[in-house]
Amino acid sequence: MAAVENLDMYADRIERARAAMDKEGIDYLFVGPSSDLFYLTGYDAHISERMNLLIIGRDGKNAMVVPVLEAPLYAGRESLAPTLTWTETEEPATVAAGFIGDASGKKIGVANQLWSSFLLRLQDALPGAQWTSGNEVMRVLRMRKDAAEIEALAEVARRTDAAWTEFIETARIAGLTESQAAKKLGELMEKQGLDWKGGICASGPNSASPHHHTGDRTIQRGDAVVFDWGSTYKGYHSDITRTVFIGEPTEEFRKVYDIVRRANQAAFDAVKPGVECQAIDKAARDVITAEGYGEAFIHRTGHGLGLDVHEEPYMVNGNTLPLEEGMVFSDEPGIYLEGNFGVRIEDIVVCTEHGARRFNEATRDLTVMD
Amino acid sequence: MAAVENLDMYADRIERARAAMDKEGIDYLFVGPSSDLFYLTGYDAHISERMNLLIIGRDGKNAMVVPVLEAPLYAGRESLAPTLTWTETEEPATVAAGFIGDASGKKIGVANQLWSSFLLRLQDALPGAQWTSGNEVMRVLRMRKDAAEIEALAEVARRTDAAWTEFIETARIAGLTESQAAKKLGELMEKQGLDWKGGICASGPNSASPHHHTGDRTIQRGDAVVFDWGSTYKGYHSDITRTVFIGEPTEEFRKVYDIVRRANQAAFDAVKPGVECQAIDKAARDVITAEGYGEAFIHRTGHGLGLDVHEEPYMVNGNTLPLEEGMVFSDEPGIYLEGNFGVRIEDIVVCTEHGARRFNEATRDLTVMD
Repeated sequence: MAAVENLDMYADRIERARAAMDKEGIDYLFVGPSSDLFYLTGYDAHISERMNLLIIGRDGKNAMVVPVLEAPLYAGRESLAPTLTWTETEEPATVAAGFIGDASGKKIGVANQLWSSFLLRLQDALPGAQWTSGNEVMRVLRMRKDAAEIEALAEVARRTDAAWTEFIETARIAGLTESQAAKKLGELMEKQGLDWKGGICASGPNSASPHHHTGDRTIQRGDAVVFDWGSTYKGYHSDITRTVFIGEPTEEFRKVYDIVRRANQAAFDAVKPGVECQAIDKAARDVITAEGYGEAFIHRTGHGLGLDVHEEPYMVNGNTLPLEEGMVFSDEPGIYLEGNFGVRIEDIVVCTEHGARRFNEATRDLTVMD
Repeated sequence: MAAVENLDMYADRIERARAAMDKEGIDYLFVGPSSDLFYLTGYDAHISERMNLLIIGRDGKNAMVVPVLEAPLYAGRESLAPTLTWTETEEPATVAAGFIGDASGKKIGVANQLWSSFLLRLQDALPGAQWTSGNEVMRVLRMRKDAAEIEALAEVARRTDAAWTEFIETARIAGLTESQAAKKLGELMEKQGLDWKGGICASGPNSASPHHHTGDRTIQRGDAVVFDWGSTYKGYHSDITRTVFIGEPTEEFRKVYDIVRRANQAAFDAVKPGVECQAIDKAARDVITAEGYGEAFIHRTGHGLGLDVHEEPYMVNGNTLPLEEGMVFSDEPGIYLEGNFGVRIEDIVVCTEHGARRFNEATRDLTVMD
């Protein structure tokens, strides 16, 4: 069994989680297999019907509930949280409840991605507890990226950009299906050493559906084509969107493309520590609304990313959270004209002392492909 | 937007869910993005921080809560459950609660894989409701596979077998790392038209860890090597384990291999409609225990599979559920000798009128590789 790397880093993160719990009055934090668990311990637990549960106690006592057959995967991390194994014929919720003892009046925070099947069993096993989201605790830790995280995010973006640049210089996609075009892009991602697990290629009218499922439509001249994809490097995500036109762009496409590009830039220019997240959304939205396309910009301007492709902070109206240095998020306004076409331009940016820095620098110029 | 296929099949499944709810006294069933949602509607919803929620009402009124930007992906299924869209600045739990109305005294079943972040918000928005697992409802539907499901499961197993057969006939893995060996197997899976998303290759002492994370250990002569992998076809999973030896097998390996193989056969022979799931576990376990290795068989004998790689029914002590025709599950006893080696042999079987039928027929003979 190899020694676990970065144990001190994880211990520090768990200590910061405990401090955040103290602030929120949370007595126990429950974390299932997820990016949260990986962030806190480095343990990449199986997501399955078998309960893995990290319990962080405000009192400094932690435990890791692990199926006995997966205990070897957690080995070496016992200093973070001692192992409580359960065998195949035991009920892990009972094991967790045994660790907590009397839960009456205790406030238990639950990290986001734990399956309800587990939460319901834990709620049964711990009567009298008060259940709340653990998101306030986890987001405080995860939103601000440290230097190593920023380096990983910049690197995966750089490689993703490089794949795109080669794609638009070398690929011919008219006549291919969306799936075939996506596969070509995927091959260039793999050439950059990045895993490819699929991405959005939305052509013609499909491009007006922001989360279109890449399919069998054949790309043809006169199509707008939205590509939205990413990968991971050291666990950290890239996420980028570019919209191209096949053949000579129409006037309407040029106009909409220009608006979206200016909206992307306006959001970028608005980034500064202390500015509220909703102001980033407003900056992009104002550009689009002023041009009469406000109704066609049907999603928020951005989402944080890191170990998850979507995480806090969200650039959305109503989010008064102030930006801080080290926050990393997408800047991705779009305009979607149903039955016609859509345009989205997405970069990942980091908030620095002096404003935004883009991780994605692949061209945002209107790009024509064959 | 292409017409949705199999709408009648989904309508029938939802109707059967409603009947099961009636039996359990469940007023509403909540289903998030998951295999359950796909099973009931064919909607392959994004798993993300945006709430997608199918609500099935015992009273025959259903709803599908969908983020407005993902509504196009659900389009065509409104006859199953009318769409309730929410915009980026609305709270979807409020939208869901508005559909339910007064929840006092209502029993709400929650399907397994809904994230806790959603359940906690729904619990807040629906005070007075009684929350329970929706598993009893969903498992009744999903455990017994219909003819099309069995065909898909048999086909993906057949292709997985074919990849393995070519692998053991052509590959030389001594000197490769576990990751490299797994990649070779993955290439042969892709040759069969199956996606490869990684699998377990556990060599030497690592083979004693049932869920080992495939890594950088170099495979060498004298190693037992456990391969446990699968893929999907039409959404349905394969899952198979074979254990090989590199070079001349030791006496101990031969002995343990033979015991595990007999345990696999004993479980197979025990399968018959009406037999309790725990009896299948016992059949395999008795063989291993009689040989003195009972303590080294640290997991249940099997799990159901279908749209999920692990699902009901589970072949585990304490599970008194009687087998029925059409139930599909793994038969995978193992012996794990810490610091030394492990052996596991896994097939997928279906319960038929006359007993078990194996989907996997790749050789179970002791196999030596270079």
